[in-house]
Amino acid sequence: MGCFLLVLLLLANSSRADDGYRLWLKYDLLRDAGKREAYARSAQFISIQNNSRASSDPVLKTAAQELQAGLQGLLGKPVPIITSVPNKTGGIILTTGTGAESQSLNDEGYQITRRQNNLVITGKSSAGVLYGAFALLRQVQTLQSLEGIALTSSPKVRYRLLNHWDNVNGTIERGYAGSSLWKWYELPERIDPRYRDYARANASLGINGTVVNNVNASSRFLTGEYLEKVAALANVFRPYGIRVYLSVYFPAPKTIGGLNTADPLDPQVRQWWANKTKEIYAAIPDFGGFLVKANSEGEPGPQDYGRTHVDGANMLAEALAPYDGVVMWRSFVYKADPKGDRFKAAYEEFKPFDGQFNRKVIVQVKNGPIDFQSREPFSPLFGAMPRTPLAMEFQITQEYLGFATHLVYEAPLFKECLESDTYAKGKGSTVAKVIDGSLHGYPITAMAGVANTGSDRNWTGHTMGQANWYAFGRLAWDHTLSSEAIAREWVNMTLTNEPAAVSQITNLMLRSREIYVDYTTPLGLHHIMGYGIHYGPEPWKANASRPDWNHTYYHRADSIGVGFDRTATGSNALSLYAPDVQKLWGNAETCPLPYLLWFHHVPWTKKLSTGRSLWDELCTRYYTGVDSVAWMQRQWTQVKPVVDPEIYADVAGRLATQHKEALWWRDACVLYFQTFSRQPIPAPFKKPERTLDDIKRLVNTYQLR
Amino acid sequence: MGCFLLVLLLLANSSRADDGYRLWLKYDLLRDAGKREAYARSAQFISIQNNSRASSDPVLKTAAQELQAGLQGLLGKPVPIITSVPNKTGGIILTTGTGAESQSLNDEGYQITRRQNNLVITGKSSAGVLYGAFALLRQVQTLQSLEGIALTSSPKVRYRLLNHWDNVNGTIERGYAGSSLWKWYELPERIDPRYRDYARANASLGINGTVVNNVNASSRFLTGEYLEKVAALANVFRPYGIRVYLSVYFPAPKTIGGLNTADPLDPQVRQWWANKTKEIYAAIPDFGGFLVKANSEGEPGPQDYGRTHVDGANMLAEALAPYDGVVMWRSFVYKADPKGDRFKAAYEEFKPFDGQFNRKVIVQVKNGPIDFQSREPFSPLFGAMPRTPLAMEFQITQEYLGFATHLVYEAPLFKECLESDTYAKGKGSTVAKVIDGSLHGYPITAMAGVANTGSDRNWTGHTMGQANWYAFGRLAWDHTLSSEAIAREWVNMTLTNEPAAVSQITNLMLRSREIYVDYTTPLGLHHIMGYGIHYGPEPWKANASRPDWNHTYYHRADSIGVGFDRTATGSNALSLYAPDVQKLWGNAETCPLPYLLWFHHVPWTKKLSTGRSLWDELCTRYYTGVDSVAWMQRQWTQVKPVVDPEIYADVAGRLATQHKEALWWRDACVLYFQTFSRQPIPAPFKKPERTLDDIKRLVNTYQLR
Repeated sequence: MGCFLLVLLLLANSSRADDGYRLWLKYDLLRDAGKREAYARSAQFISIQNNSRASSDPVLKTAAQELQAGLQGLLGKPVPIITSVPNKTGGIILTTGTGAESQSLNDEGYQITRRQNNLVITGKSSAGVLYGAFALLRQVQTLQSLEGIALTSSPKVRYRLLNHWDNVNGTIERGYAGSSLWKWYELPERIDPRYRDYARANASLGINGTVVNNVNASSRFLTGEYLEKVAALANVFRPYGIRVYLSVYFPAPKTIGGLNTADPLDPQVRQWWANKTKEIYAAIPDFGGFLVKANSEGEPGPQDYGRTHVDGANMLAEALAPYDGVVMWRSFVYKADPKGDRFKAAYEEFKPFDGQFNRKVIVQVKNGPIDFQSREPFSPLFGAMPRTPLAMEFQITQEYLGFATHLVYEAPLFKECLESDTYAKGKGSTVAKVIDGSLHGYPITAMAGVANTGSDRNWTGHTMGQANWYAFGRLAWDHTLSSEAIAREWVNMTLTNEPAAVSQITNLMLRSREIYVDYTTPLGLHHIMGYGIHYGPEPWKANASRPDWNHTYYHRADSIGVGFDRTATGSNALSLYAPDVQKLWGNAETCPLPYLLWFHHVPWTKKLSTGRSLWDELCTRYYTGVDSVAWMQRQWTQVKPVVDPEIYADVAGRLATQHKEALWWRDACVLYFQTFSRQPIPAPFKKPERTLDDIKRLVNTYQLR
Repeated sequence: MGCFLLVLLLLANSSRADDGYRLWLKYDLLRDAGKREAYARSAQFISIQNNSRASSDPVLKTAAQELQAGLQGLLGKPVPIITSVPNKTGGIILTTGTGAESQSLNDEGYQITRRQNNLVITGKSSAGVLYGAFALLRQVQTLQSLEGIALTSSPKVRYRLLNHWDNVNGTIERGYAGSSLWKWYELPERIDPRYRDYARANASLGINGTVVNNVNASSRFLTGEYLEKVAALANVFRPYGIRVYLSVYFPAPKTIGGLNTADPLDPQVRQWWANKTKEIYAAIPDFGGFLVKANSEGEPGPQDYGRTHVDGANMLAEALAPYDGVVMWRSFVYKADPKGDRFKAAYEEFKPFDGQFNRKVIVQVKNGPIDFQSREPFSPLFGAMPRTPLAMEFQITQEYLGFATHLVYEAPLFKECLESDTYAKGKGSTVAKVIDGSLHGYPITAMAGVANTGSDRNWTGHTMGQANWYAFGRLAWDHTLSSEAIAREWVNMTLTNEPAAVSQITNLMLRSREIYVDYTTPLGLHHIMGYGIHYGPEPWKANASRPDWNHTYYHRADSIGVGFDRTATGSNALSLYAPDVQKLWGNAETCPLPYLLWFHHVPWTKKLSTGRSLWDELCTRYYTGVDSVAWMQRQWTQVKPVVDPEIYADVAGRLATQHKEALWWRDACVLYFQTFSRQPIPAPFKKPERTLDDIKRLVNTYQLR
């Protein structure tokens, strides 16, 4: 018996370095034997409460198996799954009840309570039980007591999705963690074991849907050939409560249907979509629906036939009418208008359609009005479409946040948007309340995150990028969770349980987004990154093929000052917001500094609330931003003793790159804006030793073939 | 002690499925305790023979460490590395000697002998010792006796390289195993632990160089920014005896040098390359040299300035003059000439330059005259350039061989070329003897393989693709090894030691390439694959932007027959070969069937040596090819009990895809060629149920965005 224990210990604490593959579901043996024993007393068996339906439910089976594997790892002893439980106590009961105890839950919620000395996980659906099982594991992983446990939780949003911008050829648009997880050439005959681990990770967060292909979609996915492949993925995901969705190429009736139009009002086209949808549901009975990018950035759409977004979306919704599926129609549209303001484009194009969409349509809106910048004010569409369900689209992948080499914990960015007050129905009308349906009574609610996953062994390239996947999932479930609570959970489950280190890493994560803003786009600067690739600085870009792809379009620096005047004296984009919001942001004197240059063209010499001039403040942010990366490096060095060596080295290496590139950003921006401000770098900061031309050469390197 | 053993056994035979990451370097505990003990008696310690230079040599250290790790895994007991060895016996001695015992070795060869009851691994260089160490491990892995061991081996070719067609953005041109192994955005600060395992795998085969970037090259790699990154890779590879090479973009002096020309005769351009080369060697003292694709498929080159391949190559060679580096100049060129024959292009452009290249230049020639087809006659350049060293370029990645879903063991393809007789100096003037320098006395010799590696966990996508990497490496070291011997080694090390299964899998591998030829391009058909992507069939392609990108250009089917007449009545490409070769292939009556349609336009009704008409033979090959894939599936099913379950499922899934697609190829080709032959499918074969249009739709699916 002593020998058996030794074996278990060796297996659990194997000296193999941690490659990050297991994400936050590590299930390593808990170090504290006392705690292990305490947990084990409550986990002597797992039982699915016996009723004919439940015993064959694959999702309930998943819940039991995950609990078994997790507890076995954490507690170091086997936990049997038993079938019947007459008066047996000290175990875990999984049950889908509709009785009094589940009254307070919605369809996917769960309750964990003690009853007759058993831990009982109840859900109205088997998916609820699965989420409860992961919640119970999380309690153990984060060393919470199970004595007197009484957890009740229901998701605030119905559709919690990852959007994968993955192409058929294995590349990922804006992906920085290797190639696509989906191996289209091998499917359906070969099932990569990784698909299951992907589903496990999502289910552990409550993510219940996956759009598997890029919004710049290939019509290939709608061919019989590819639907078989997609169905094979759906079969893997189903026992984890995850449904598959497809991005659709609007002209598919032409490209693969043999029709000569894709006009959404054409009867043949409508019939084609109805038939195609029927074919999809025959292959994938729980298919989730369609995501559409239309008439945006060169993608075709209904406007090509003189029709509207409403015409296009409603046609697809009608094809879905016989089924439990939805249409997610993206509002990310903008036209090349040298006199316009891209900020206003989505609002101007979609607001007039409020109330006209089919009840199966949800309009998917990016969090900000431009495009996933490190900081944006919330999109003015939120609060402006009370009769049209709006979905939130966040970007988890760090397209504008330093790819997989910069550490940016995104929960504060997500939360800043969700907690913004639209004032649509007076004070307290937060974006979150728009999204969760409580403000306008939306019949469908959704939150989507553009995935940061890829084929890299640790899924996200940067190990700390796992926290962004985690945070998105947790917030999609419950947007009231704090950034700090989510970070602490994740660190505990992924990196270390050592309390001082947990606090130190959590603190570093919480500060990281503001640090990134400081050394790249402080005070409301935006869209000045490397052209095309969106990496590194390029504020001087002024020769793009479209005016709104020039970066001078966004910062408008001149000898007087810098910033985009979006007040009434400028583009007046501000007028799209509720009056209270206008009041908050409309006055350059009182506009919060983080949003200042989003709305105002501010003189270089203008004294800010910090006591410094705009120019001095800008420089101060750039310089202290870089110094803060060095601070992050020092913080990370301090946790070395308690973090796995491979993960430690991974993050330390990337932080070193980040510091080098923070300097690159700083030098590029202060030297470039100095050509307008014509003022010295303020003390105590030293002027960069390299020249603007040096930097431009460096930037050019990243843009060569 | 009993307990300790139990632990070891559990760790070694852990129930975790095998994900293929460890390749052929598995080092799992040998099952036969008697054999383990026998080996252990010869491996009681490892010692680097003491001399001041050796003790600090990183390559020798690698050899000792790899031996230690390998033997510890295989034998289940620790093997100490000790520093001095006065009269100690029963161990392994590593020594770089220049004495009598190493007389027969070349610079990288090794000798393994028993001396004074020690196993002594001798090399002239530390790299030789490293290769000897891996050879010794291979002996143990394949259960060969070490009693009376006396192995002597020297590589027959000096430069044994992988060519990676990897781009900066992480994609791989013609890569089917995920994204690039090289993480350029993270380098040099973060070193992926996988780089080291890549180097180990290559060193175990004797591969001593890596061209890290695509031949369609980015000039980025020559910037200071990127040289730092490349140097970081070189630092990882150096202790494994592997040097780094770069593909260069010929106009780099313009794109990153600021010059207004890249004319190779321009003094400024020459100075720029000299300076750049100096900069490279400052960062990477053992840099290997340049690989160049110039004036080929749209890539720029010296002809843009009215200069020649010789001018371009010699300029780079002169820049390398102060250093130990070489220029590999590719002969893969062809022009869009509707009246020409692409078959002749490389020969016509390069043969006139024989003897004019700088002594540091080696011309790198693809094995066949077209482009890595499933079967090609050897390139007529081999044997035709006695005064110009020629390197062999094989393609390991399966661009035209079914990507990572078709099982094609390539050693027979490589060997077929290497063993072809050029008759350049009479009978026996094989391509191998051209390449290894023995025929013409070449001062430099090289063999390059276009890598099939990627970020997929198992490196090559198809597990069986690992065998192609392995076979290339082993043949680059010693082209006299047989395909069967190499397959047996690999199966033993990678899949199973069970003798019946080893034979069965080896047999399946040996037949696999001919089976692939049968269901895709039998009897010498070539270049009729899916346009652009090079996957699946598309013999009907006839509207390409260049005549020589049409597939009708290659098969020339008409109502009379099929095949490309390359005799004197046709393009006369055959005249580029020696008279004996012309005699062999020039007569349609006697030309071996595998090459028939490469050289002859043969009537459908022509009776072949098989007794069948051409049409019947063609159909027979297509149909039996498909049936043979089913045979491979059955063979694989039979080895299930002795192969790891994850690897079993991986291969079984891909074989199922292969069978589906073999049917696709068969149906496409017989239905298409039937439109010319106008003859029925011969009994006992049944006409495909689907139509040619059905197939065309399927092919179209793979070509949509």
